[in-house]
Amino acid sequence: MAEGKGAKRIGVLGGGNVGGALARLWAGKGHTVSIGVPDPNRTQAKGGSPGAGVRLTTNREAAAGAEIVALAVPWPAAQEAIRAAGDLTGKVAIDCTNPLSSDLKSLTIGTTTSAAEQVAQWAPGARVVKAFNNIGAVNFGNAQFGNLRADGFYCGDDAAAKAVVRNLIEDVGLDPVDVGPLRNARMLEPLALLWIDLAVNQGQGPGHAFKLLRR
Amino acid sequence: MAEGKGAKRIGVLGGGNVGGALARLWAGKGHTVSIGVPDPNRTQAKGGSPGAGVRLTTNREAAAGAEIVALAVPWPAAQEAIRAAGDLTGKVAIDCTNPLSSDLKSLTIGTTTSAAEQVAQWAPGARVVKAFNNIGAVNFGNAQFGNLRADGFYCGDDAAAKAVVRNLIEDVGLDPVDVGPLRNARMLEPLALLWIDLAVNQGQGPGHAFKLLRR
Repeated sequence: MAEGKGAKRIGVLGGGNVGGALARLWAGKGHTVSIGVPDPNRTQAKGGSPGAGVRLTTNREAAAGAEIVALAVPWPAAQEAIRAAGDLTGKVAIDCTNPLSSDLKSLTIGTTTSAAEQVAQWAPGARVVKAFNNIGAVNFGNAQFGNLRADGFYCGDDAAAKAVVRNLIEDVGLDPVDVGPLRNARMLEPLALLWIDLAVNQGQGPGHAFKLLRR
Repeated sequence: MAEGKGAKRIGVLGGGNVGGALARLWAGKGHTVSIGVPDPNRTQAKGGSPGAGVRLTTNREAAAGAEIVALAVPWPAAQEAIRAAGDLTGKVAIDCTNPLSSDLKSLTIGTTTSAAEQVAQWAPGARVVKAFNNIGAVNFGNAQFGNLRADGFYCGDDAAAKAVVRNLIEDVGLDPVDVGPLRNARMLEPLALLWIDLAVNQGQGPGHAFKLLRR
């Protein structure tokens, strides 16, 4: 089976809005999905439910059994989640994060690097693809805007890994748009901040999305 | 007459792709437009033509007679063009620049500031609005993509100045989209770099544009 096609084993690090939505939608498409958290017992005791068909486990277990790992934790927790996940060599690592300041008005890194490039340094050998950072998770599985579909922009340096992620973007109903090498996360992270600023700081809510028109 | 409406006196600093296209289109809409360059005689001798109805003059003259000044020079020439233009206090100053590296693959400033915020420091008292930086100039006056129109994103801190610029965005056929305060140029400049990277570095040409979909 070509790497890009078929059911996958996916470990989602983080069970918040982004990770929870991705896990639920991917499980619904027939993938085998685990959500990893620092302490599954504590998460469960607090009423955290991973959703139908999704296993709740540790970051280590979620990553160990997976060929694809999605990093979906708040940026300040990213380095520790990657450390806890263990060796990611050869795995496709989807970086869904944004390096947001606590007031959601700025990025804490950018211009000369990006969260995605930092993730690639923290997880040497992982095949990092930036995706699922540039639109609010409430639009995952709900990406239709009239007769147009919201885009899911992604970038990375490993063509085969990108083909895998492209399918996973389609699985949550977004139009996948390849914007080039991983360093272009330097543009996708500000694009995410623009989305967030409109939604949160400017009070417009999450009902918007960017689309790349082409002639 | 309300400030936002009617024919304006506009000085465009820079007669390249961006400045030339804006000047031509605005003149065609009935505005009184000058293009300012460092040495008009030299520009004319080199065959530079400002287009029908557009006067070619110095940066100082172009700005002096104008209520609106558009900064449309390469970023390394921006500070000098503003200095040459003289006092811009009270004028609407449209920053069309992007702080591009010479290889067009990076921004030289960003994340914690932006070209627009730098321009505002260089031109104290000017009412700076960021606009016309986030789509290739070839799409000015040619902004239709099937039945959709490309967006012209803009931001600034002066509501009346933004209303003026909104009309000028419509004058070149773009859908104006207000994305908030001037600091959000920190996101519009990376968006421009993404547009440029796709067009130039990835060889896709200029036939694309970003649009903000809304529910």
